Amino acid sequence: MLEIEVVLSPALLRLTEVRNKNVVVIDILRATSTICTAIHEGASAVRPVKTTEEAIALKNHGYLIAGERDGHKLEGFDLGNSPFECMNGRVTNQKIALTTTNGTKCVQAATDAGASNVIAGSFLNIDATSEWLKKDGKDIVLLCAGWKDKVNLEDTLFAGAMASKILNNNFYTLDCDSTHLAIDVYELGKHNLAQFLIKSSHYQRLSNLHHQEDMEYCLSLNLFETVVGQKNVEMFKIN
Amino acid sequence: MLEIEVVLSPALLRLTEVRNKNVVVIDILRATSTICTAIHEGASAVRPVKTTEEAIALKNHGYLIAGERDGHKLEGFDLGNSPFECMNGRVTNQKIALTTTNGTKCVQAATDAGASNVIAGSFLNIDATSEWLKKDGKDIVLLCAGWKDKVNLEDTLFAGAMASKILNNNFYTLDCDSTHLAIDVYELGKHNLAQFLIKSSHYQRLSNLHHQEDMEYCLSLNLFETVVGQKNVEMFKIN
Repeated sequence: MLEIEVVLSPALLRLTEVRNKNVVVIDILRATSTICTAIHEGASAVRPVKTTEEAIALKNHGYLIAGERDGHKLEGFDLGNSPFECMNGRVTNQKIALTTTNGTKCVQAATDAGASNVIAGSFLNIDATSEWLKKDGKDIVLLCAGWKDKVNLEDTLFAGAMASKILNNNFYTLDCDSTHLAIDVYELGKHNLAQFLIKSSHYQRLSNLHHQEDMEYCLSLNLFETVVGQKNVEMFKIN
Repeated sequence: MLEIEVVLSPALLRLTEVRNKNVVVIDILRATSTICTAIHEGASAVRPVKTTEEAIALKNHGYLIAGERDGHKLEGFDLGNSPFECMNGRVTNQKIALTTTNGTKCVQAATDAGASNVIAGSFLNIDATSEWLKKDGKDIVLLCAGWKDKVNLEDTLFAGAMASKILNNNFYTLDCDSTHLAIDVYELGKHNLAQFLIKSSHYQRLSNLHHQEDMEYCLSLNLFETVVGQKNVEMFKIN
């Protein structure tokens, strides 16, 4: 039986051993949803980077550069952090360097901590990704990106959804209260994810920035079966 | 309208401003439940200390010394961390120095961070404490002690219960996802706290150490109206 541990904030990652485990980075609104979309739409790779300077430096190496800070698109960047900007052939066969407030830093943190594989989590491909993880068979860490190290509702909700799918009602074998907590939250919210998240701080923040469509899209279930994981410094299709 | 923020682990306390706020330290199983019981049973003060050495040094100053590590009573100490050891006149008019794995360290951390008042949280006096906080009117931080910096279910459950009582269904005014999360968990667990917590890691840990009775007691609602808070380095009855 594989073990699943939910880490509710990157600030708590140091308490969890991730070596020889698969780490799913979760930044539902919007980084990891956008990464999965970009790869599904034919981008050849997404390279998560921590700083805007790193992204800008990669522009000279043929990358499209994409990113946001505090929900705002970055000046002079090719793309923001909206999944819709990755559609209609805009990223096909392109490499993208992406930097965001929370999610892309987590990919780096999980890599630095020695994860076996770092996987991008999203509702858009949750079933395919869960199946991939079950088949791979390693213990799993579900790492919520949160908001500036604070716990958020949407990433916790996704962690609960994925833990539920993988454990298949075998919850009582868990030795991790964070996982129980995430599953409990998902049990409450699963019948209407968007309705459940209206109260959350980032939903409110993105609503104020007119990203309503992005949020609806990011909460859509199983639009595709592409699974996205990291090899070296870039994220690719791995199934 | 006062603001309520739940901090799910002491490792996240640095993200939250606590100055000029009331901080409720929550270590339901068992430190803060035991502190409240001791004061209600007539102890003149409880002094939370971080190390066993600090406790032992206070024995020479007339304190009863109490404590545990990893759920086990400490060798040579007068009392463990069970609320029942504080009953039947055993602590009446006594001062107690208490050191525990998680809870007592949080009292110190909240004090060091500059909290206006540090309050001991327990189900045993939850209504009286919530009323005291509402009357006092300062913004509130509900600080879950967790287990060695990891998030736990029972402290989150209590934080949700107290936030619910104080906000009185005014949840949509909250700008803190951790508070929403705690309230959601409480909504799921409120009809049978003990049943809800059977799955939690610390419930299992204490069950293995034969502390079943302690846990049932610590989940009892409103056994008394004594409110316990810190003045200088000691905790007293404050109502």
